[in-house]
Amino acid sequence: MSKNIALLTDFGDSDNYVGVLKGVILSINPDADIIDITHKVEPQNILQASWILKTSYKYFPKGTIFLSVVDPGVGSNRKRLLVKTSDHYFIAPDNGLLNYIFEDIEKIINIENSRFFLDEISSTFHGRDIFAPVAAYLSQNKYDLEEFGRNVDINEVQKLNIITPQKANSQIVGQIVNIDHFGNIITNIPASFLSDSTKLYLKELSINICKNYTEAAKGELLAITGSSGTLEISQNCGNAQNTLSLKIGDQIKIELE
Amino acid sequence: MSKNIALLTDFGDSDNYVGVLKGVILSINPDADIIDITHKVEPQNILQASWILKTSYKYFPKGTIFLSVVDPGVGSNRKRLLVKTSDHYFIAPDNGLLNYIFEDIEKIINIENSRFFLDEISSTFHGRDIFAPVAAYLSQNKYDLEEFGRNVDINEVQKLNIITPQKANSQIVGQIVNIDHFGNIITNIPASFLSDSTKLYLKELSINICKNYTEAAKGELLAITGSSGTLEISQNCGNAQNTLSLKIGDQIKIELE
Amino acid sequence: MSKNIALLTDFGDSDNYVGVLKGVILSINPDADIIDITHKVEPQNILQASWILKTSYKYFPKGTIFLSVVDPGVGSNRKRLLVKTSDHYFIAPDNGLLNYIFEDIEKIINIENSRFFLDEISSTFHGRDIFAPVAAYLSQNKYDLEEFGRNVDINEVQKLNIITPQKANSQIVGQIVNIDHFGNIITNIPASFLSDSTKLYLKELSINICKNYTEAAKGELLAITGSSGTLEISQNCGNAQNTLSLKIGDQIKIELE
Repeated sequence: MSKNIALLTDFGDSDNYVGVLKGVILSINPDADIIDITHKVEPQNILQASWILKTSYKYFPKGTIFLSVVDPGVGSNRKRLLVKTSDHYFIAPDNGLLNYIFEDIEKIINIENSRFFLDEISSTFHGRDIFAPVAAYLSQNKYDLEEFGRNVDINEVQKLNIITPQKANSQIVGQIVNIDHFGNIITNIPASFLSDSTKLYLKELSINICKNYTEAAKGELLAITGSSGTLEISQNCGNAQNTLSLKIGDQIKIELE
Repeated sequence: MSKNIALLTDFGDSDNYVGVLKGVILSINPDADIIDITHKVEPQNILQASWILKTSYKYFPKGTIFLSVVDPGVGSNRKRLLVKTSDHYFIAPDNGLLNYIFEDIEKIINIENSRFFLDEISSTFHGRDIFAPVAAYLSQNKYDLEEFGRNVDINEVQKLNIITPQKANSQIVGQIVNIDHFGNIITNIPASFLSDSTKLYLKELSINICKNYTEAAKGELLAITGSSGTLEISQNCGNAQNTLSLKIGDQIKIELE
Repeated sequence: MSKNIALLTDFGDSDNYVGVLKGVILSINPDADIIDITHKVEPQNILQASWILKTSYKYFPKGTIFLSVVDPGVGSNRKRLLVKTSDHYFIAPDNGLLNYIFEDIEKIINIENSRFFLDEISSTFHGRDIFAPVAAYLSQNKYDLEEFGRNVDINEVQKLNIITPQKANSQIVGQIVNIDHFGNIITNIPASFLSDSTKLYLKELSINICKNYTEAAKGELLAITGSSGTLEISQNCGNAQNTLSLKIGDQIKIELE
């Protein structure tokens, strides 16, 4: 295990929530190294968080502990998960956030041992009171996973209801899994589905499939293999989302020429 | 003293102001560990900053130095404070920002010794030129507090004009001290004022008092004990502030049923 | 060389791009210390990024590596630069971003050696695949600069088309190089151009030249020497940009009284 703890939340950055999380972690393990993935997941958008986590974790050092809190069910009796894969650890509420991590799993623990929690547990901020201290104690490398709670089977945990990308002849169906800061529309459609096509149709728009942004004219929409290997709709020197107004979670249908 | 320096400012994150602060600190003490609380205090909102500081500092390691800069009076002759409490250190302009810290004080210093400042002092950025270097030198653990300036009495420093929460029968008056990223309206009314009530009235709205968000229907307003132990008005899976349009600093009057 | 890597990008903070950059760096050099300058450069605004870099780097420890990625030409055949000045290192695409750094240069390398890149190079995210790993390997202090690529001459690299500030009698022309989070309009006009004037005219507005914000009445526009030594237009307890609606890159003409 490393002493790296990577944070992914919908807490935003205008409150003290993230800062307090870090204070709690450093109070327990002063040697922890904390890295922000982002705290700007759309409030309560579990699908977006799960995609961001999927496309992030492989770039982090082995042993990194991923503390992910998007938690609309805080205070209810949803489970709290500690997951070990071959190379990393994941801590999150049991609501589908770890959906893409379940592809590569060694152990799932239901976090139950309150000796690893803060003394007082609020009903609105388990990130601070439960998840952060658990991550901090785990990063001390002194405890077996089973000390945090009991093993649970993968069938006992929540999955997301995802639209699996499908291709039939020239028709492709998939899902919008993120829309980034530049207005790039990110889908879960593997780039391999596009084979050697040079053009696609989306909502009656004809869009060229390009190798890089500068192949398109300024202001022109383009389709491109994004940095995670899936189809993205972009606009050269512009913001595709301003033109297309799509939503994370939407189904997307395209037709190859 | 630890080598932790926690930052709280209204500098935002779209400029280089925070980055430069960190550069200055690390140039003086390369071993400092810098933690952001938030830099998105509303510009010049001292009340909000003081509340965020109050509800943050206890979660940080002992010895942490809190560098808080919300400073509309920069360049004027307002004092600059270095405060020691039993467990922490606080550096801030003398404008009420440390209001809630004065409950638990050991020493107040008026920062005056320019040997701890940068060589050139601008008239607009004392965060960089004065406060950050002072925090960095302090974190070296080599100087007595008195080397930074003279002792001042608590009566010599600025206080905030806060609305103290009051309860008379079923009527409660308090103040809105923050509105968070999720649209939760945070008051300074202690949860204990609500006793065992199950409903309250705010501006002719009837609002249920809940133990957690999911007790309310989706989209419904609810009252809840927030993560700092005070009354908050929230909306399950929604944004209460979008519905209520309140302002930090506003008086809030509620009536218990 | 220090192990400090300072980041300046237009990646925003709502995606995982910055987090992944940090993951890549720490996977290569676990001892790197990463400092954010800002990730909120306006998308593709190279002029703004170059000004932010110019006004930041001197405040960072000697040996700091500045990794700056504002890269509309990603995937095209623009060069990738590694620049050494007397005290610092700079890594950036060759598009003018390092314009102000070229004043003080020891060596310019065109980054070409793919042994320092990630194994797979996407066409949209060279920050992650090329620039971040190069910065991380450089911070290990094990490689000569020439191992990263060939030396290039300063005449071979891109410059920005900047409006050089000029003064003729009481007329001054310059450029708006940034607009900050508080709405301060930041120009590249040296404060020395204002000599002892006490008033200036901008677009038919008469604006007092002040020593600090509080010299102006609340809500009043004022001209002031900003924290980088150039003329800024501000508003006391207000947002000058809301009043003036200017744009980064605009020419600015003022007349001294």
